[in-house]
Amino acid sequence: MTLPKIGITLGDPGGIGPEVTLKSLSSPSSLPDAHYVLFGSKTLIDNERDALNLDISIPNDSISLHEVDGSYTPFEKGKPASTNGAASFRFFEVAVQEANKGNLQAIVTAPISKRSWNLAGISWAGHTDYVSQSHPDAIMCFWSDALKVALYTHHLPLKQAIAKITEKSLYGFILRLYENIKKIQSHHFQFLVSGLNPHAGEQGLMGTEESEKILPAIKKAQMMGIPISGPFPPDVVFRDALNKPDKIVLALYHDQGLIPFKLQAFDRGVNVTLGLPFVRTSPDHGTAFDIAGKGIADPKSMTEAIHLAHRFVSAK
Amino acid sequence: MTLPKIGITLGDPGGIGPEVTLKSLSSPSSLPDAHYVLFGSKTLIDNERDALNLDISIPNDSISLHEVDGSYTPFEKGKPASTNGAASFRFFEVAVQEANKGNLQAIVTAPISKRSWNLAGISWAGHTDYVSQSHPDAIMCFWSDALKVALYTHHLPLKQAIAKITEKSLYGFILRLYENIKKIQSHHFQFLVSGLNPHAGEQGLMGTEESEKILPAIKKAQMMGIPISGPFPPDVVFRDALNKPDKIVLALYHDQGLIPFKLQAFDRGVNVTLGLPFVRTSPDHGTAFDIAGKGIADPKSMTEAIHLAHRFVSAK
Repeated sequence: MTLPKIGITLGDPGGIGPEVTLKSLSSPSSLPDAHYVLFGSKTLIDNERDALNLDISIPNDSISLHEVDGSYTPFEKGKPASTNGAASFRFFEVAVQEANKGNLQAIVTAPISKRSWNLAGISWAGHTDYVSQSHPDAIMCFWSDALKVALYTHHLPLKQAIAKITEKSLYGFILRLYENIKKIQSHHFQFLVSGLNPHAGEQGLMGTEESEKILPAIKKAQMMGIPISGPFPPDVVFRDALNKPDKIVLALYHDQGLIPFKLQAFDRGVNVTLGLPFVRTSPDHGTAFDIAGKGIADPKSMTEAIHLAHRFVSAK
Repeated sequence: MTLPKIGITLGDPGGIGPEVTLKSLSSPSSLPDAHYVLFGSKTLIDNERDALNLDISIPNDSISLHEVDGSYTPFEKGKPASTNGAASFRFFEVAVQEANKGNLQAIVTAPISKRSWNLAGISWAGHTDYVSQSHPDAIMCFWSDALKVALYTHHLPLKQAIAKITEKSLYGFILRLYENIKKIQSHHFQFLVSGLNPHAGEQGLMGTEESEKILPAIKKAQMMGIPISGPFPPDVVFRDALNKPDKIVLALYHDQGLIPFKLQAFDRGVNVTLGLPFVRTSPDHGTAFDIAGKGIADPKSMTEAIHLAHRFVSAK
């Protein structure tokens, strides 16, 4: 059996990305079997390891280092900085190039700072935004044992998100999501579609998007044999899906999915981007500049992101 | 000290309302000191008590019975029925009349069935809808130890709820809410206002309602000395308020508030209507026709509703 190759990017050097990455990689016994390729800089890794007194040497048997563009020192800890932005962007850019060439099956990304990217003159709003340029059909999902959510729209004003709901576009989204989930989720699963309006419109009394657009898209998908049902009242569907590992909720807009997800899966949540030639996961937290360099960052979510990437590429 | 008078309506006779009411009243030692007035029918109460083998006799020292319009028998258990709808509506209508006359300080309402009301030719969508006719400024809140939420709009299509957000109207809502909360919440509290758009608009990148309407309303309220802050990212504010008893989140639309509330406070949540001449609370569940008459309904939420009504009228 060939081991999967999983890339890991260190994230913003000023944040907790390098720390949670090294902590996650420090207990190799709990890491799933794979070839890990770290995209970053040896200086950064060694500095971080020494500062936090971590017991790890990289490269080692299971972890190789892809040194990206030489040195970025000195790194500024604890705040956005252009050098950090340039570095974290290059770590990611190079990893994506490798994945696109077929040299990686997955990339796990430690958090970057959008402000650092801005300071470095990089206009993408984040990892997903960057990969969406070449893969406009990329799908943002949030994954935990407690709750699994796929977002129909993400970084749009709510008014525009509502306007984007059409039968055709929603049906297309469901099809794409299904094709992607089929590849990575080997066991049975079911999509639950959330409605848009209170009580899912209550037979048109509180909105018509459900009857005119959402239900027709669901029915079409059902006729294609896709395991899907809804639309359900938004304030019921997340509770119904809670702790049911085979249920995946389709949320129609950013906060409909992320309010419940962040309440339930805060420290173990994983952000997953589907619809790419590779799997991409990341922890569900930011750079946490306020605690960067203190050695107190919790690697749980990063570790979950690595495990999930491994599970997804192994299911392929 | 005069004991407060608290009315309790039995709800739909075919649902679990009478059961959770009688169960709540059956352990008088755990009930707060008050004069309770039950609005219902002796036949219904006695039938329910005998069927479920409950150890309670009504009226007793602390609970009197307000017999509403004689007999409604036979009651149909376990499904919507016009006789049940007519009965539960009259229980509530008469209690509201008594409260409006000043004979009650609070009403706790067991769940009614909107379908039963429809079958009986009653067009109100529920308790809040009914009292809103004479009190258009009634405010719907959801209360639990874990989370407290006030809804700026409730049963509106999402598109209309967005259109309803204006600086003036939101400011008016904050003022009214503040006046009402001040009366019932004797200790310190703080309002946290949720944004409308992802990341609360992220400086206009993802929506302008925050900068143009929501923030100006908050600033005005702050100048009036109201303890309020925001707008916060919707996917962060509920988590931040969680388990902080002095935080009250202002949600801008139905599901923004109810998705997190129902996830967190399912079996202990209490629905509170403010802005009335009396306090009105109710359990956060419906008639549960599927388990009605089986003796397995959990009275926790009803008991919480009674306690909360008592706390609110005692703080007055």
